[in-house]
Amino acid sequence: MDYTYGPGRNHLFVPGPVNIPEQVLRAMNRNNEDYRSPAIPALTKILLEDVKKIFKTTSGTPFIIPTTGTGAWESALTNTLSPGDRIVSFIIGQFSLLWVDQQKRLGFNVDVVESEWGHGADLDVLESKLAADTAHTIKAICLVHNETATGVTNNLAAVRKVLDHYQHPALFLVDGVSSICALDFRMDEWGVDVALTGSQKALSLPTGMGIVCASPKAIEASETAKSLRVFFDWKDYLKFYKMGTYWPYTPSIQLLYGLKAALDLIFEEGLDNVIARHNQKGEGSKKNLTQEKRVTSKEHTNRSRLAVEAWGLKNCTQKEEWFSDTVTAVMVPPYIDSSEIVRRAWKRYNLSLGLGLNKVAGKVFRIGHLGNLNDLQLLGCLAGVEMVLKDVGYPVKLGSGVAAACGYLQNNIPMIPSRI
Amino acid sequence: MDYTYGPGRNHLFVPGPVNIPEQVLRAMNRNNEDYRSPAIPALTKILLEDVKKIFKTTSGTPFIIPTTGTGAWESALTNTLSPGDRIVSFIIGQFSLLWVDQQKRLGFNVDVVESEWGHGADLDVLESKLAADTAHTIKAICLVHNETATGVTNNLAAVRKVLDHYQHPALFLVDGVSSICALDFRMDEWGVDVALTGSQKALSLPTGMGIVCASPKAIEASETAKSLRVFFDWKDYLKFYKMGTYWPYTPSIQLLYGLKAALDLIFEEGLDNVIARHNQKGEGSKKNLTQEKRVTSKEHTNRSRLAVEAWGLKNCTQKEEWFSDTVTAVMVPPYIDSSEIVRRAWKRYNLSLGLGLNKVAGKVFRIGHLGNLNDLQLLGCLAGVEMVLKDVGYPVKLGSGVAAACGYLQNNIPMIPSRI
Amino acid sequence: MDYTYGPGRNHLFVPGPVNIPEQVLRAMNRNNEDYRSPAIPALTKILLEDVKKIFKTTSGTPFIIPTTGTGAWESALTNTLSPGDRIVSFIIGQFSLLWVDQQKRLGFNVDVVESEWGHGADLDVLESKLAADTAHTIKAICLVHNETATGVTNNLAAVRKVLDHYQHPALFLVDGVSSICALDFRMDEWGVDVALTGSQKALSLPTGMGIVCASPKAIEASETAKSLRVFFDWKDYLKFYKMGTYWPYTPSIQLLYGLKAALDLIFEEGLDNVIARHNQKGEGSKKNLTQEKRVTSKEHTNRSRLAVEAWGLKNCTQKEEWFSDTVTAVMVPPYIDSSEIVRRAWKRYNLSLGLGLNKVAGKVFRIGHLGNLNDLQLLGCLAGVEMVLKDVGYPVKLGSGVAAACGYLQNNIPMIPSRI
Amino acid sequence: MDYTYGPGRNHLFVPGPVNIPEQVLRAMNRNNEDYRSPAIPALTKILLEDVKKIFKTTSGTPFIIPTTGTGAWESALTNTLSPGDRIVSFIIGQFSLLWVDQQKRLGFNVDVVESEWGHGADLDVLESKLAADTAHTIKAICLVHNETATGVTNNLAAVRKVLDHYQHPALFLVDGVSSICALDFRMDEWGVDVALTGSQKALSLPTGMGIVCASPKAIEASETAKSLRVFFDWKDYLKFYKMGTYWPYTPSIQLLYGLKAALDLIFEEGLDNVIARHNQKGEGSKKNLTQEKRVTSKEHTNRSRLAVEAWGLKNCTQKEEWFSDTVTAVMVPPYIDSSEIVRRAWKRYNLSLGLGLNKVAGKVFRIGHLGNLNDLQLLGCLAGVEMVLKDVGYPVKLGSGVAAACGYLQNNIPMIPSRI
Repeated sequence: MDYTYGPGRNHLFVPGPVNIPEQVLRAMNRNNEDYRSPAIPALTKILLEDVKKIFKTTSGTPFIIPTTGTGAWESALTNTLSPGDRIVSFIIGQFSLLWVDQQKRLGFNVDVVESEWGHGADLDVLESKLAADTAHTIKAICLVHNETATGVTNNLAAVRKVLDHYQHPALFLVDGVSSICALDFRMDEWGVDVALTGSQKALSLPTGMGIVCASPKAIEASETAKSLRVFFDWKDYLKFYKMGTYWPYTPSIQLLYGLKAALDLIFEEGLDNVIARHNQKGEGSKKNLTQEKRVTSKEHTNRSRLAVEAWGLKNCTQKEEWFSDTVTAVMVPPYIDSSEIVRRAWKRYNLSLGLGLNKVAGKVFRIGHLGNLNDLQLLGCLAGVEMVLKDVGYPVKLGSGVAAACGYLQNNIPMIPSRI
Repeated sequence: MDYTYGPGRNHLFVPGPVNIPEQVLRAMNRNNEDYRSPAIPALTKILLEDVKKIFKTTSGTPFIIPTTGTGAWESALTNTLSPGDRIVSFIIGQFSLLWVDQQKRLGFNVDVVESEWGHGADLDVLESKLAADTAHTIKAICLVHNETATGVTNNLAAVRKVLDHYQHPALFLVDGVSSICALDFRMDEWGVDVALTGSQKALSLPTGMGIVCASPKAIEASETAKSLRVFFDWKDYLKFYKMGTYWPYTPSIQLLYGLKAALDLIFEEGLDNVIARHNQKGEGSKKNLTQEKRVTSKEHTNRSRLAVEAWGLKNCTQKEEWFSDTVTAVMVPPYIDSSEIVRRAWKRYNLSLGLGLNKVAGKVFRIGHLGNLNDLQLLGCLAGVEMVLKDVGYPVKLGSGVAAACGYLQNNIPMIPSRI
Repeated sequence: MDYTYGPGRNHLFVPGPVNIPEQVLRAMNRNNEDYRSPAIPALTKILLEDVKKIFKTTSGTPFIIPTTGTGAWESALTNTLSPGDRIVSFIIGQFSLLWVDQQKRLGFNVDVVESEWGHGADLDVLESKLAADTAHTIKAICLVHNETATGVTNNLAAVRKVLDHYQHPALFLVDGVSSICALDFRMDEWGVDVALTGSQKALSLPTGMGIVCASPKAIEASETAKSLRVFFDWKDYLKFYKMGTYWPYTPSIQLLYGLKAALDLIFEEGLDNVIARHNQKGEGSKKNLTQEKRVTSKEHTNRSRLAVEAWGLKNCTQKEEWFSDTVTAVMVPPYIDSSEIVRRAWKRYNLSLGLGLNKVAGKVFRIGHLGNLNDLQLLGCLAGVEMVLKDVGYPVKLGSGVAAACGYLQNNIPMIPSRI
Repeated sequence: MDYTYGPGRNHLFVPGPVNIPEQVLRAMNRNNEDYRSPAIPALTKILLEDVKKIFKTTSGTPFIIPTTGTGAWESALTNTLSPGDRIVSFIIGQFSLLWVDQQKRLGFNVDVVESEWGHGADLDVLESKLAADTAHTIKAICLVHNETATGVTNNLAAVRKVLDHYQHPALFLVDGVSSICALDFRMDEWGVDVALTGSQKALSLPTGMGIVCASPKAIEASETAKSLRVFFDWKDYLKFYKMGTYWPYTPSIQLLYGLKAALDLIFEEGLDNVIARHNQKGEGSKKNLTQEKRVTSKEHTNRSRLAVEAWGLKNCTQKEEWFSDTVTAVMVPPYIDSSEIVRRAWKRYNLSLGLGLNKVAGKVFRIGHLGNLNDLQLLGCLAGVEMVLKDVGYPVKLGSGVAAACGYLQNNIPMIPSRI
């Protein structure tokens, strides 16, 4: 049943699916149940309230859909838009590219704004488009919060600012797949109309749930949106919400209990502490992050970025303001094939890294560091990366990246609150 | 984490989700993995071959989609048909009704043939429609093999016979959700063009995989079908099949390993023995079922049906030829509310039964007996049903149904082959 | 990994090891931990307090020993007695016989009181021995509360009464292996000096923990007892209890968490309700059992005994006052080999029954009904037993035992409190 | 249920209990079974054969006892010796000290040879004792193969050489608790009479099985040995071995299946490769270790020892020939309390290290590196140790130990055979 056994634990550092905590594995280790018994609606009711917290919304309506991130995208688009609708969408890497591809195939009129890979979304272009669009032909802005392929985090607050400045009514649809529960995300405050994530990302669950949250404005839009949809139709969910049975079709019992366990862990640690842990400012247990600090500046402290510097390599991410706290995309010199790094990491060190995709294939490898993870796990990964780099002929100084990361961490990471 | 604890095991006899064998729970008890490592494609390749066996096809192309049965329906329809296409579809109960609803909402021209609930699909009407359709305006016949709401199994071989008789090129799309891996199903022999099932049914897995299998003719149709689709698009799968990486988006690692374990159990028991076990002819371990026998006649031996008779109640299923081997829909007298039976079974006996749905709400309760289940489990359920019947005022003779079922079983069930 | 696969769940009705609830399996599904970290002592402290509740003691000292029931026996004896000490011990079946065998091999002077198998301990003989023992040469009375081989429950309160009547200082050592957490057991009230059980019995855990509880008098005796002992020596435990680290050698982390889960389930249901569930008076959720009622009389209502009667068979247990609520030992007619029943149950019906042992080998088979179990599980078992009986040539009326048990249960079992 | 939650995985580097591989957790995730059914003897038969392989014996008789290492000690002693027997036993650290304590309490005449902690057993003293003992009053030599407290491995082959040289008939009893399945161990070749280990050590299982293996000479000795024993008596096992039912009392079903899975992993990797992995010569997949090489010399290459040197610290182990491949005992400078290192590792870094025990309490902390573990796991641990060292005021150069270990590993560790 294990096709490629190697001793010890696999070191899973792809940017999803991520490591599942034992608590969640335990919660899912169960037989099926009748989802029409009173037990599952009682659980679902709690889950729907809890899920709103990770989106930081009180007015949103969440949908827990038995699908993947790709399906969650489709749910966001088809419920709020009609064929031919003009949408402004940004390509800054492979995942935003795939979303745009979906948008086109679903029949929307996609106004694509493309940036060089490694850059964030060009909000100046957005501004000029919105300024020009006095007729409000733009029905939606689609933005990937964190582009997993290049390690770039976009500035959602800035998008909202521009929209507000022009009092533009376009819906704001956000892919939060590799951000929600890991990066600072504020649905209500930033006026996001549809936000979505997948269970196998920062929630640290198996794949299988696309979690979509709709603002009241998005729900209103769904009442008139003409895109054909059945499986992804929010109406069916809303009908069953009203009846109190919640599920238009069979949910995964195991994932529901797993989600409860995953959310319980997040709330026990504290969502803002979880976000701080990803950011490695290490202030999590002391004080909450203020919005100002997070949005306006970013200290150059992320431990994996420090390692990249110490190795003498470059990040794919081109500016500090875009650096992602959930994935580090590392550029390799031209004489090295980054795919060989990924292959070798797995074959020799039982280390799973992310490939470079599409435009950066062969040029970039990626370290995912999101979800229920601690620093020693990451340091083991960094040590492994160093050895692989040497294996493939890059003159890395062994221990250098680990030393750089430790230098920061030893000063900054908090005590584990429950153990003090 | 358990909202409604009761001592002992829950007796799960809804017609899905069904009991998961320990072997499958064990296989799924694992961390996430990188689905882009060589391990997952190696596993997937085996799974795709194995899955074809449960459809009894050698020429079909299977798709293992992270979705539910509802999504599998949508996959079958949108990949093979274009908006406005005429399809003949049968309503004989709640699930066929829901599929027709989906067909309409997806923009097809649905020619509905409705039967009284408890009856099978009216194949005479089909025959006359096909006879009249010399212009071949009918693009597809949609049929639910086993209608879970009423315990009715339709005759697929007969449909193929009619299609062949008129040399009609319509696609034959079959919902095998509560049949495949439990009832006799022969994709190639019966010329089924798309067949589909869900993981939480006879495969005895958690919910989360819609398994769809397409004939060469269906694959061909998918190349020109104009229904908008992205998440459910077979093209994306086929592209990744060619590349040997198999997955256009993230699969559930746990369900893949679970599927392997579930199929291994089925093949160890022998698929035909599994089907015979559902049919309770008990000849499974001795000889294979011949098609003739299965298609043309059905002995009146199903153990739960014997119990229903012994209780003096009627089946919802109106003719012996339609009796389902996976679900028994029991009619209650007018003075009893069947929902109260289901409620009480759960509240007093930790027994999960299926509700009557829609037209038969309050009139019918259902016993699911599909998947990895043995007779003593079912006998415990039947004993529970007897007590509930008495609880709600029906004058059942306690033990009567169990006695009737045992009378048959004791004569017919085979020894467990691995223990002889 | 499964040497004898059969479809569906195994029906486990041996009188131990018993079915493990999913909640407990989940709790044990975890990696090892350092047992010297603060987490395990914190857990252990709670466990030691909780364990006292199942013995109904406030003054006792519990020891959770990584061993089986046999080891727990040895712990009880060697810590409280010295070689050559005279003990009065009762043989009424295979397990009491094995304990006596151990007592002899450990060098004690065992004064054996033997009864016919199927009878309880002869307390008249005890009385005369105590009456005669004015010199107090008897150092201990050893009694098995519930003899698993014959389905006989001894009257502990009566023993205490006799001891008190003669003001005899002998220690009262009780094997509660198949009784504690299932039968009414009151360590403090009945003046039991050492009581013991095993994790795989009514606690519904895997094998691996012998749980021994010592009264202050037993602890005092342990300070001077001269039996050689190291692994089983309470002194080592007491030393580590004082230090607050609790474990003289490595405990099973998994069983500790499992024990916590098992106890939580018992306390959630209510220990007295658990006992009532085993007794099937069904009054558990309404009122607590009074001592008077339990000790002085026993209604003839146990569901499996009703089945035995309906089958026209006899219990091995010879008098109603001795009937066990945790195991039913059924006599078969001379022309049937009870071992064949057990073999066939497993080979054909995936049903595990207990063999007849030693003197009753071939004459008795046993149905264990202890631990986390509900009535529909037992009814499935009873239906299976009926079919096996018929298989081996006993003219049972199929359904008769189930009917008898249901007749009682349908009138008496309570609603599941958490679901009302 | 988790008293001290911290994000991510616990880094478990105590020298036992050790990390359990997922494959083993899965195998143990199961309900109880009747251990008297044919399935468990069939499994046991395989296990007893397989277990002999890890002892490298063909003539030995293994006993799988539901106990801990302490119980396994008692089993070894009481089955082969009589009260008052003279045994030569070595104290070189806390665990050998505890065994000697047990030997004394069990009534043997223990001739103790004590070495300074950090040194191996003084075989010169052994030689002189044997030379002097022409009357063969010495009945047994008791030796701990690997002293976990000080990271010292004794030379078993040399002991056998001395015994043979003097043709001394003393039994050779070996504690292989932290060696078997990790260090080179050869029961038959080295003439070991009783060898023993515990499940929670290099086998990577939960605690709960003491595995003892007896040579024909030891079995013969057990027939006349006069130590009182019941629970630990081999006779009972041998009796049940003959009957083919194998178990004198209830084994843990879960541990049996877990043991099968653990052994399967070891055999899949290859026992000699497993041993080479612990030794980190990295030649495991290429060629087998020759006895000469292992016994006569030891290259100074163990990765954790390299880290210790790089940190400028000393090993507790005083000579290279004694260095253990399963545990590294690190001396700290006098101004640091090693217990504070262990506490802080757990409280800040979720890292579990071993405390210094008894004579070296406060002076030593220990890194366990045995069982199913890979190098990146260990490197994460080493990075953590570096940060803790800095936390407590030791002027370590961050990254130095990791660099030293990586320098060795990157040159030496093999590819994972199944992934090449």
